[in-house]
Amino acid sequence: MSEAKPSELKNDRFLRALLRQPVDRTPVWMMRQAGRYLPEYRAARSQAGSFMDLCRNTELACEVTLQPLERYPLDAAILFSDILTIPDAMGLGLYFEEGEGPKFRKPVRTEADIRRLEVVNSESDLDYVMNAVRTIRRELNGRVPLIGFSGSPWTLATYMVEGGSSRDFARCKEMLYSRPELMHQLLSVLADSVVDYLNAQIRAGAQAVQIFDTWGGALSHSAYREFSLHYMERIVAGLIKERDGRPVPSILFTKGGGQWLEAMAESGASALGLDWTTDIGAARARVGDRVALQGNLDPAILYATPERIREEVAAILAGFGQGSGHVFNLGHGITPKVDPEHAGAMIEAVHELSPKYHL
Amino acid sequence: MSEAKPSELKNDRFLRALLRQPVDRTPVWMMRQAGRYLPEYRAARSQAGSFMDLCRNTELACEVTLQPLERYPLDAAILFSDILTIPDAMGLGLYFEEGEGPKFRKPVRTEADIRRLEVVNSESDLDYVMNAVRTIRRELNGRVPLIGFSGSPWTLATYMVEGGSSRDFARCKEMLYSRPELMHQLLSVLADSVVDYLNAQIRAGAQAVQIFDTWGGALSHSAYREFSLHYMERIVAGLIKERDGRPVPSILFTKGGGQWLEAMAESGASALGLDWTTDIGAARARVGDRVALQGNLDPAILYATPERIREEVAAILAGFGQGSGHVFNLGHGITPKVDPEHAGAMIEAVHELSPKYHL
Repeated sequence: MSEAKPSELKNDRFLRALLRQPVDRTPVWMMRQAGRYLPEYRAARSQAGSFMDLCRNTELACEVTLQPLERYPLDAAILFSDILTIPDAMGLGLYFEEGEGPKFRKPVRTEADIRRLEVVNSESDLDYVMNAVRTIRRELNGRVPLIGFSGSPWTLATYMVEGGSSRDFARCKEMLYSRPELMHQLLSVLADSVVDYLNAQIRAGAQAVQIFDTWGGALSHSAYREFSLHYMERIVAGLIKERDGRPVPSILFTKGGGQWLEAMAESGASALGLDWTTDIGAARARVGDRVALQGNLDPAILYATPERIREEVAAILAGFGQGSGHVFNLGHGITPKVDPEHAGAMIEAVHELSPKYHL
Repeated sequence: MSEAKPSELKNDRFLRALLRQPVDRTPVWMMRQAGRYLPEYRAARSQAGSFMDLCRNTELACEVTLQPLERYPLDAAILFSDILTIPDAMGLGLYFEEGEGPKFRKPVRTEADIRRLEVVNSESDLDYVMNAVRTIRRELNGRVPLIGFSGSPWTLATYMVEGGSSRDFARCKEMLYSRPELMHQLLSVLADSVVDYLNAQIRAGAQAVQIFDTWGGALSHSAYREFSLHYMERIVAGLIKERDGRPVPSILFTKGGGQWLEAMAESGASALGLDWTTDIGAARARVGDRVALQGNLDPAILYATPERIREEVAAILAGFGQGSGHVFNLGHGITPKVDPEHAGAMIEAVHELSPKYHL
């Protein structure tokens, strides 16, 4: 079925690698590739106003999504949006203060706050996202696949309960340990919302989806399984599996989740994202042929010289080794101060050094 | 040789567990046990002035070290000090701003800055620490052993180069990847200083030492070995092995190091500290009988009810299982907002639930 309408997509390397099908070279994209390190992004951002204004402006959101593809030979585009659109649609009032992380005007603190939450209807409540997906897909015109995404239920819950970023997640962990049934209620509404949201993105044109579990790594081994992984499994089980005759692969990325790869590999996701602390060769040995792997260059390596960047790319490609099932990426989002030419050096190195692993 | 002068130490459970010798129950202490969650600590702190004033005041530093032992039946005391005393002694000007992490007035940024650094002479440059160790040891009067400590070379280097805490360690990683020889020079001076510092603490009376590698977990798998673990191995090799006829055990704690336990177990350290993300049972299976393990309750569990705290203590004790080689602790420092009674509930649970694992 992956053979249907292949002509529509000119470069399907990324989708094929996620399904562990043969490719000519390792596909590459970068988390946060449409971002502040690009001067053309900063120009669009200042034109739009706030970060959320940019997300809600269909034309500009499409423009910034395509910007990195104009600069670099990337194998995938990722929707320009935020991981916290769902709680924003629930009425929590997402905003960003310069130099700080995201915040909510109305955090979720009490039992009543949680009981009040309803599963979002993404087609209506998040129509600006679906408009962006449709527009980007049309403008991409089959050049590369488009990735849709969402934050994981646990990650959304941390921002909703803490009201923003947190060092120790004191409030959510207090709830998790003292009122686990309440935390489960919150996570359950979020999981149903994420299923609805990602399926709406797939219907609008997303050809793969990634779940960003940014804070799963802050949990203990057993709490991770019960409060984060469990809900991501529920999401993966509820996703549309095929669209326009092609499978829709899913990627699960828990930052700091390197210790739990075996459990994550049983989630039903097509691929696992690795942060840079994990040895990709050892990870491949641990998960076997159950999932593809995505990652995992330390984004800070992009501060080094192009020669060093190339060496580190070579080490990761060699670490994964022969055959398909690897999507090259950073181990976390690219940071604002990186020189765009250094990102280019990384992508060029993947192009030049990876074909020998696919002979 | 561990039988010499046993009368001097009334409770050697902690030292015995680190050496994997039989004990009657699992020993317990808490990282940052002399800290802001205790009202008596806050009183002493406001009497002293700044945090560093408190560290430099022998009498008050001794007083706050002993405070948690007055409240709880703990099995070890830990010197009240900071992990960053060495760079402060190198002239970088350590200070603390309320609500923020530690900072340096003169960060180390250039090659000249690094070439200028000299190995500290702890007996003279850090005499206030040695005075505190001697005073505490005398006041303890053999009640429980005293733990000395230092930050790891990599952790010290991150603060020295960044000038304080960091989200992405951009400056140190740029140096590490672009000028590795310069980073090695810095780490080498620091490793020699830490050896001198910990040995001076041992001579002054510290009966075990812990190396806090707070930021080792921010490195990639290979960079961790080359830039953090390597220098900790060098330190362990240089430590005084025996004092007053007793072995002096060493504990190596890399926060976020759960993926690298096998390598850490080869370091020569007596024990590894585990943060709360690691399953202690799986960790024990991985390291075998090469090292003891210390940890690893999520400090955030102390926000929960005493009943839940007890359940989680039980799970960790059962996870480690039968026999010696486990020192109960949190997986990171206790946080300021914890109710002291909840810390008490944790310690009581260890006392009540652990004897059956030592029959």
